[in-house]
Amino acid sequence: MEIEVKFRVDLDKIKEKLESLGVIFSHFEDQEDVYFRVPRPKLLRVRAIHNMKKYYITYKEIMDERNEEFYEVEFEVGNFNKALEMFKRLGFEVEAVIKKKRWVYKLNDITFELNRVEKAGDFLDIEVIAENPEEAKKKIWEVARKLGLSKEDVEPRLYIELISG
Amino acid sequence: MEIEVKFRVDLDKIKEKLESLGVIFSHFEDQEDVYFRVPRPKLLRVRAIHNMKKYYITYKEIMDERNEEFYEVEFEVGNFNKALEMFKRLGFEVEAVIKKKRWVYKLNDITFELNRVEKAGDFLDIEVIAENPEEAKKKIWEVARKLGLSKEDVEPRLYIELISG
Repeated sequence: MEIEVKFRVDLDKIKEKLESLGVIFSHFEDQEDVYFRVPRPKLLRVRAIHNMKKYYITYKEIMDERNEEFYEVEFEVGNFNKALEMFKRLGFEVEAVIKKKRWVYKLNDITFELNRVEKAGDFLDIEVIAENPEEAKKKIWEVARKLGLSKEDVEPRLYIELISG
Repeated sequence: MEIEVKFRVDLDKIKEKLESLGVIFSHFEDQEDVYFRVPRPKLLRVRAIHNMKKYYITYKEIMDERNEEFYEVEFEVGNFNKALEMFKRLGFEVEAVIKKKRWVYKLNDITFELNRVEKAGDFLDIEVIAENPEEAKKKIWEVARKLGLSKEDVEPRLYIELISG
């Protein structure tokens, strides 16, 4: 299961704090996410990471009310536009397109995704893949506190909800 | 557009005839096709070519009553089982699983797919990608006649129809 907590942040300030924490910069991603309308708690997305020429189909089921726990099925695809066309021709409707710049950092088994999201702002997703969501959240909050983040900085809405209104 | 005519054949005899015609053997494929139920004229398939470790999602729209003309959207995927799981979790139902051995031959812009299909028999698909279906069919029939194939050998049913009934 993917456990992630999203915080609203100031991009430059949090970058400094991440670096002072000793996290390792992994890579940069120029992302375009196309969400197709499916009934919640399901999510269906085709993602392009344009600068890496990598494309993915991702299906998620939200497991909790805070949008922190996800069951995820993700696989790479060879062609972004053909994946989009397939879903459109199957009758799926585009719900939203989200463009973001993402800087990915790692610290042991914790992934930090620092996102500058068009029309939504700057966010830090702290993510752990784990069987036990409680342990994962403990880990996330331990490091979040070190970054000076608190409950008030949490953004429980999905990016798709932030974009739509 | 993909134009293809399917003939019911005797695999060994037609192999000999193909070779005497000077076609070039391209490669062998050990295929598993999983079809999901979508309303006709649409077709939705996830294909594994197990011996090549290649996987594809293919969406087709049948353009004619003889099942010879197809609009096709196909792209490679990195993981067969995850692609299947995604469609199942989106609510698609498996309509049929078709296993076949395929020998692929080429002659200029014509592709010959010789298929041994589990529970259905042996077939030769002669295929041309073309804008003009009439010209493509002329080309297909020219070479089919040289292989000793006639209208009576044509199998207009889809593999999925042959398996299901």
